[in-house]
Amino acid sequence: MARDPARVEAFSDAVIAIVATLMAVELLQFSPDGPRDADLASRLGHEWRAYLAYVITFAIVGQVWLTHHNMWRYVVRVDQLLLVLNLMLLMFVAAIPFAANQLSDHLRGTEADQQISAAIYVGTVLGEALFFNLSWWWARRRILLHPDLDPRLAKAVARRFLLGPLLYLVAFAMVFIDPILSLLSYLLLVGLYLIRGPGDLPPAGQEAAESR
Amino acid sequence: MARDPARVEAFSDAVIAIVATLMAVELLQFSPDGPRDADLASRLGHEWRAYLAYVITFAIVGQVWLTHHNMWRYVVRVDQLLLVLNLMLLMFVAAIPFAANQLSDHLRGTEADQQISAAIYVGTVLGEALFFNLSWWWARRRILLHPDLDPRLAKAVARRFLLGPLLYLVAFAMVFIDPILSLLSYLLLVGLYLIRGPGDLPPAGQEAAESR
Amino acid sequence: MARDPARVEAFSDAVIAIVATLMAVELLQFSPDGPRDADLASRLGHEWRAYLAYVITFAIVGQVWLTHHNMWRYVVRVDQLLLVLNLMLLMFVAAIPFAANQLSDHLRGTEADQQISAAIYVGTVLGEALFFNLSWWWARRRILLHPDLDPRLAKAVARRFLLGPLLYLVAFAMVFIDPILSLLSYLLLVGLYLIRGPGDLPPAGQEAAESR
Amino acid sequence: MARDPARVEAFSDAVIAIVATLMAVELLQFSPDGPRDADLASRLGHEWRAYLAYVITFAIVGQVWLTHHNMWRYVVRVDQLLLVLNLMLLMFVAAIPFAANQLSDHLRGTEADQQISAAIYVGTVLGEALFFNLSWWWARRRILLHPDLDPRLAKAVARRFLLGPLLYLVAFAMVFIDPILSLLSYLLLVGLYLIRGPGDLPPAGQEAAESR
Repeated sequence: MARDPARVEAFSDAVIAIVATLMAVELLQFSPDGPRDADLASRLGHEWRAYLAYVITFAIVGQVWLTHHNMWRYVVRVDQLLLVLNLMLLMFVAAIPFAANQLSDHLRGTEADQQISAAIYVGTVLGEALFFNLSWWWARRRILLHPDLDPRLAKAVARRFLLGPLLYLVAFAMVFIDPILSLLSYLLLVGLYLIRGPGDLPPAGQEAAESR
Repeated sequence: MARDPARVEAFSDAVIAIVATLMAVELLQFSPDGPRDADLASRLGHEWRAYLAYVITFAIVGQVWLTHHNMWRYVVRVDQLLLVLNLMLLMFVAAIPFAANQLSDHLRGTEADQQISAAIYVGTVLGEALFFNLSWWWARRRILLHPDLDPRLAKAVARRFLLGPLLYLVAFAMVFIDPILSLLSYLLLVGLYLIRGPGDLPPAGQEAAESR
Repeated sequence: MARDPARVEAFSDAVIAIVATLMAVELLQFSPDGPRDADLASRLGHEWRAYLAYVITFAIVGQVWLTHHNMWRYVVRVDQLLLVLNLMLLMFVAAIPFAANQLSDHLRGTEADQQISAAIYVGTVLGEALFFNLSWWWARRRILLHPDLDPRLAKAVARRFLLGPLLYLVAFAMVFIDPILSLLSYLLLVGLYLIRGPGDLPPAGQEAAESR
Repeated sequence: MARDPARVEAFSDAVIAIVATLMAVELLQFSPDGPRDADLASRLGHEWRAYLAYVITFAIVGQVWLTHHNMWRYVVRVDQLLLVLNLMLLMFVAAIPFAANQLSDHLRGTEADQQISAAIYVGTVLGEALFFNLSWWWARRRILLHPDLDPRLAKAVARRFLLGPLLYLVAFAMVFIDPILSLLSYLLLVGLYLIRGPGDLPPAGQEAAESR
């Protein structure tokens, strides 16, 4: 009768998987279908923003999944509030494709449109980061984590979780200087994360060594 | 060869996850794309109902998942009828985005339209609540629950499951007074549930203490 | 390193869950949105076929899931061909919403259109039933089933699996007499299945008694 | 706290299941709905490319799932890079329906359009094959595989993983001779794979015998 986190992970996996492939559905609808006037090359070129949005969204949602995976493997028990915090997190994650779409649509729009779409994007990414922070804080406070997890490590994770939103804010502050530059620095941060992410506490090699 | 509930949970998780993100797909299609006449801010403002419907539906479907999670962790065996009752439940759950869409579209329509869309919504939410009640009643009757579950607790859950639909009915009776008021009271009930829901029998802290 | 069927079930669950909710996506797109000329009641009434198709498809796909669940709980090992047969089954299952859509669209069309859409539907349902039969036959032949499963029971399941397609064929032969009658008799068969389905070998009560 | 591959498989299953059924969503939208001028038969005939694309995509995505299933049952530990490689793989898999759509739309287009859509397709399939190769190479290098897996077998799998992309390249080189021929030879390769695929190391019968 214990509430083990396996089902929470399965549900979150399903939601995140749908969100990751949502942009592929968009791609299908954007696809310049049927033989029309222009040739395929120019029509595909015209839709480059849709392809960029696909790659960016997949990278971001992939990063969310990695963070979720890294965090939840330390969670051994769940309570009602942790489930609610996780649902709130998923609500922001599910809004990422919408926000990414807005951003890619208005990268070359008026300055006001650029700033509003960037604000929507920042809001979504910050909301997601906020609920990661809250989940981890609550799991630590209510002793829902694995008893063998070193409390100093748990604290280090919390500190690194806080770092993410700050860096994202800096990257997006740049949207007011140049939107393309802002996007590139954001992608750089995601790329850095993918190589060495928060929550990936013991170096991979060391972990492999330990568990042997 | 036992029919354990793990696969039922996995299937239900997948259905509920899709339903939760369905509104995000809607969001993408509602998204005011491309540079058109009006500026982004006014176009986004025009679509506020779609964003409200997204948040409401995610909250409701999240609540359904929580209730499902809370109920099924006590189920240790399944029979054919329990599976059928669960499928009926999922059929009503999958109709929630449609009902929510109707409601958000007609909040400011004619009085007749408001009442019909509210009726569709009540029907969907009541159908869902009905099959939660039937599932729990059947699981108790056929001794499909965990042997350690106190029968008095099982009965208390059943009573609380009945309370939900009644409160929902009251909230929706208000649609004939004022639709916005009705919606707000409904959201309040969902919010209350998220903090302290039916099926969440032992207080979270106590449970944590027990399992330590 | 054994190939256990857990992941096959998880993948099949995901595909079947998506197919079940696919009609709900259709529902959203059919939804008579925004305030237009006609009132909501008449517009909803106009779309009754879409709602019927949703209920029918959910019932059929639910039945597929039940059959899959009932069959695979006896499977303890998988080989490459069983996986391929399962993928073929899923390909037909994923085509059910398309076939149901065709049928509901042409129930009141010309006689030729009725017969073609009925033929597409029969083809899809028969294809699905065929691969259920093939999967079971192969699993029996290659001794991939649970060693405790009585071979006579395994044979009885095979016989009942064959019965399904035959009954479906009879129900659909009626499409040439009256399409509505054919649909009703099909729904009756699905309903009968849901109460007492093939593969549900030991009566539910007995099973419960055994496992206690 | 170990990072076991179960959740990676669950997430990959969800993504692959969505991609497999994505074409079924396309089918629904392509479906010649409502009674219009032409009769159903000719309208269905007109859309044969959409149905072909559905079958081909399902076969290809089914093959990806089989390869993933066959590979990951040997993986017993994961590290950050293996997860990233798996996410990259999934990003290419999620793009397959888009690429297949392009190809089926331009099979009878101008020569330039045929070559561009074939190039997109080759790129997608090669990207997918590349990340399968990289995942396997990394898993071998970092000793993330099951300790009982014979290193010679692991090497043989790596060699066979390399073979796939080469054969695909040959099949697609034919697109410049005849696109239909190229597609048929590709389907032949997928068909061959489904019968006897890379990663399916011990013959199925032998494996069954071993585990008894």
